[in-house]
Amino acid sequence: MSYYEMNREQMLNEYYTTRARFEALAAEGLQIDMSRGKPGADQLHLSSGILDTVTDESGYITEEGFDCRNYGNLTGISECKRLFAEILGLDCEKIIIGGNSSLQLMFDYITQCMTKGVSSCPPWMQQGKIKFLCPVPGYDRHFSICEFYSIEMINIKMNSDGPDMEQIKEYIKDESVKGMFCIPKYSNPQGITYSDEVVRRIAALHPAAKDFRIIWDDAYCVHDFSDKPDRLLNIFPELIKNKTEDMVIQFASTSKMTFPGAGVSVIGASSRNIEGILSRLSVQIISYDKINQLRHARYFKNLDGLKEHMKHHAQILKPKFEVVLNTLEKELADKKIASWNIPRGGYFISLDVTAASALRVGGLCKEAGLRLTPVGATYPYGIDPYDRNIRIAPTYPPVEELKKAAEVLCVCVKLACIEAILNKNTNDYGGKIYA
Amino acid sequence: MSYYEMNREQMLNEYYTTRARFEALAAEGLQIDMSRGKPGADQLHLSSGILDTVTDESGYITEEGFDCRNYGNLTGISECKRLFAEILGLDCEKIIIGGNSSLQLMFDYITQCMTKGVSSCPPWMQQGKIKFLCPVPGYDRHFSICEFYSIEMINIKMNSDGPDMEQIKEYIKDESVKGMFCIPKYSNPQGITYSDEVVRRIAALHPAAKDFRIIWDDAYCVHDFSDKPDRLLNIFPELIKNKTEDMVIQFASTSKMTFPGAGVSVIGASSRNIEGILSRLSVQIISYDKINQLRHARYFKNLDGLKEHMKHHAQILKPKFEVVLNTLEKELADKKIASWNIPRGGYFISLDVTAASALRVGGLCKEAGLRLTPVGATYPYGIDPYDRNIRIAPTYPPVEELKKAAEVLCVCVKLACIEAILNKNTNDYGGKIYA
Repeated sequence: MSYYEMNREQMLNEYYTTRARFEALAAEGLQIDMSRGKPGADQLHLSSGILDTVTDESGYITEEGFDCRNYGNLTGISECKRLFAEILGLDCEKIIIGGNSSLQLMFDYITQCMTKGVSSCPPWMQQGKIKFLCPVPGYDRHFSICEFYSIEMINIKMNSDGPDMEQIKEYIKDESVKGMFCIPKYSNPQGITYSDEVVRRIAALHPAAKDFRIIWDDAYCVHDFSDKPDRLLNIFPELIKNKTEDMVIQFASTSKMTFPGAGVSVIGASSRNIEGILSRLSVQIISYDKINQLRHARYFKNLDGLKEHMKHHAQILKPKFEVVLNTLEKELADKKIASWNIPRGGYFISLDVTAASALRVGGLCKEAGLRLTPVGATYPYGIDPYDRNIRIAPTYPPVEELKKAAEVLCVCVKLACIEAILNKNTNDYGGKIYA
Repeated sequence: MSYYEMNREQMLNEYYTTRARFEALAAEGLQIDMSRGKPGADQLHLSSGILDTVTDESGYITEEGFDCRNYGNLTGISECKRLFAEILGLDCEKIIIGGNSSLQLMFDYITQCMTKGVSSCPPWMQQGKIKFLCPVPGYDRHFSICEFYSIEMINIKMNSDGPDMEQIKEYIKDESVKGMFCIPKYSNPQGITYSDEVVRRIAALHPAAKDFRIIWDDAYCVHDFSDKPDRLLNIFPELIKNKTEDMVIQFASTSKMTFPGAGVSVIGASSRNIEGILSRLSVQIISYDKINQLRHARYFKNLDGLKEHMKHHAQILKPKFEVVLNTLEKELADKKIASWNIPRGGYFISLDVTAASALRVGGLCKEAGLRLTPVGATYPYGIDPYDRNIRIAPTYPPVEELKKAAEVLCVCVKLACIEAILNKNTNDYGGKIYA
């Protein structure tokens, strides 16, 4: 029964039952971490073999005859570029292989825009107040980069097929709007994949700012766990049709294919952007870790090899997502106090709660020994204007722990919502989740 | 006999003999690369074992129980920090372990000063024209960072015990002078180690700019090949005595201990600077490659283990340096047309030629199939004001090749000098090399 259809007595009953459940759970002394999108230990084991691919016996020499142990090869070794070219659907010439962190590549690119500018425009640092569009909820580390450089962030509504294009088209009339962060496949946290139409509309944007840049963070490009995975339209052919190829810089990494701490990252971009990035990179670093590039190239061989590997991740992840989704369904569906997505890949479930109670949910979970992503973190400046979004990261805890975690979360959601309804001192939306 | 004591006939004779030797060498169709400070293949083999230190069998868990394969541990794993703490003579709290490139750490630090500022001062980018002091000859990649950010470079004379402190003390009265690049041990290219007195005087500097920063690039901290190696005074205790601890940021890496392409880098700095760097790093990257940190920690264990390892490098490098130095002595000493240092470690020999003929030497070497570091590269903007410095990088070619390379170089030095003396259309210094 919906909480919003209960009378006060029913509600009080529900409160006492739920409070008792909460206290029982809290008394268990749990310590569960569901805060970040970290692969679990079982996932890490899947890639153990990668360490045996480059040894004295196998040699360190690339197919082109370079010794990976020494300096050189700034853009990456050719077999690794070919692998990523296949993943991203780009030519090898439009690819640079980085270190172990795509976040670093993004940070460094934004930094380059700040200090040197792009598209023959002045450095962003010399253009006064500048702004970025941020589809929300989104990834806190994207927002942190903007905040670090005092780039004003503008919330863009996410629809079920991607960011709201009408809003975007309005905002980009402003020349001080310099870019946008996108996670186009299995977005963090909603798990939404942009529709072909949205991708086409993004490629067809003509922002007032000539130096407008879209950070296309394809973090979950091969991270399907459903039998019917999402398919993201390759944006680059669309950009070329629209003569807007310089507008998008694509990023990806193997952090969630092999090891988050020791993977390989990649940039995909237009020839002009690659040239611009190299003019900085050639001053910043002599070469990234090519032995690790060789490990990845030898381990996966090609896209087929990688897809085969990702199936094993899927086998581990799918049950974890199901545990959480089943618990949400069982505990919350009929109460009409929360809504959530059912992702087909990626690393997160996005849960929206009514009654402006997300912060309270976070507090209760903490009391009960469950660590969530800090509530609010999915919005710029850590401020969720409706206090409703909770990012669930189900990948790290083992399944048994996760069952408990999902139960704790649901009980906390219920309790927070009941409290709010009973106290009525909140800006409750009467059980409706507004998009 | 000194060229400067020969009469014209003797000089012409010398010209014909030398020209004939040059042509004979050029006809050999050599292809020798002596351009960069790259370890040779034999050196790379010394560290093969490092790849076997982290495997499924050995495990990926640090002494503190962290799984190196996953996210986390932004400042580095404790066993690796302890190793570098011992190398640099610093507390673990004053150390951050980086990726495979100390150049990147330096670039990123300068970038942070440019965009955010240090010591509560405005960002360097907002302070108008700023300047850096560059002891010359020096390392071209340092100069490239300054050039990239339009930081004006001021040449500082190098003496046999380090940079000229009187010059430095004059320049730092100017508030727009924001820093200095130093390679304090086995400087690139001279192989000079700063004397204790110079280190103490640097530590006692009180620049007008509160945000003055010395990039203390300790690239060759354990890279001795002599039986009587140089010893560099640890600058940090001196800085603390002078209350100038924030003035110096130290950098180092294992690029020339293990693999240039796949080593580990490090920052050493005051607590305040570490805090400032972390405020940026925590936005830029989640963690550096900790598996590689674990490899290095397990492979070397401690400073003693590392020193033992470096002895093997020394065994390979010493004969290479001797080949070059012996050839220089044999071919050039009595001609009084060049001077050079005799380093006890590091990666280079710095050769100064008379008769403003260095560019011509470079051109002749190229003709004869010997690739040198581009002449001029050891000076800011690639301009050697006396056209005299040549950086010799003897580490990469095998010994037999190196013998030939040294001969080619000496013949080219002689030929260029004879040409200049005969043509008299140069600003020759009459056989004297001015410091």
